[in-house]
Amino acid sequence: MILTATEEDGAQIQDITARAGVFSAEEIQCVREIWDEVIASGVEGSGYQFIVQKKDAQVLGFACYGPRDLTSGVFDLYWIAVSPEARRGGVGRALLTESENAVRRKGGRMLIAETSGAPNYAPTRQFYLNMGYTQEAAIKDFYSIGDDLAIFIKRL
Amino acid sequence: MILTATEEDGAQIQDITARAGVFSAEEIQCVREIWDEVIASGVEGSGYQFIVQKKDAQVLGFACYGPRDLTSGVFDLYWIAVSPEARRGGVGRALLTESENAVRRKGGRMLIAETSGAPNYAPTRQFYLNMGYTQEAAIKDFYSIGDDLAIFIKRL
Repeated sequence: MILTATEEDGAQIQDITARAGVFSAEEIQCVREIWDEVIASGVEGSGYQFIVQKKDAQVLGFACYGPRDLTSGVFDLYWIAVSPEARRGGVGRALLTESENAVRRKGGRMLIAETSGAPNYAPTRQFYLNMGYTQEAAIKDFYSIGDDLAIFIKRL
Repeated sequence: MILTATEEDGAQIQDITARAGVFSAEEIQCVREIWDEVIASGVEGSGYQFIVQKKDAQVLGFACYGPRDLTSGVFDLYWIAVSPEARRGGVGRALLTESENAVRRKGGRMLIAETSGAPNYAPTRQFYLNMGYTQEAAIKDFYSIGDDLAIFIKRL
């Protein structure tokens, strides 16, 4: 079942981020900071919406999206991660589909997923392609030298 | 003379933004909010650095830049605007050059200027081209339907 994340899910969200295997220490810290912002200021105040796929009390994966400032109808998918134990079970697909549906319900018309062009992100890029996203832009050496930005977009 | 903006420059920065003629009400409000964040949290805390070109006490133009999260050495040029009375006097060129030099001094290697592809932004796009920027990416219908995002980049 996919639900809006609540305060009790925070520790498991942090844990999944840390164990995902692709995120840097700085990225793991970034998820922690935006989670703290959501707890402190709420979804509207922070601009970040976390959703979780749960099995009983266990979080199998989470996604985080929000509106892009200064646009009308564009949303960013900031984070999506699935617990290593729950991979290949459709959790990522369900979380992204629900994110898209939620964005549509808010009147959104575009979801942007920025990711890395590095080899260890090849499965992530393939996931977005499978989900109907198109890579519409890239910036060479964005994250660091040799680590490009890839911008995947789905027009909803 | 180009200086770090101080609290007393705030009103003139807001005024220049409002009179620039290209910014929407939401964008003008956005400049106000990030200015308030700088005053409240400082440059390091907020991540935004405002610089001004002044003639005596008069602000002729301003720029605002800061590091992009999760990258090493990438900075965003968030805002640059020149008072209508001071146009064609090299103020924009001086502000952008100083922004680039400051980014270099901080170890930055790339400055990104995101702007609109709309017709009324043609002079802005030409300005970036003249300053040695390359449009490396675009996203159609980003700001709104018919108003594309254009991403200009200078590798420093």
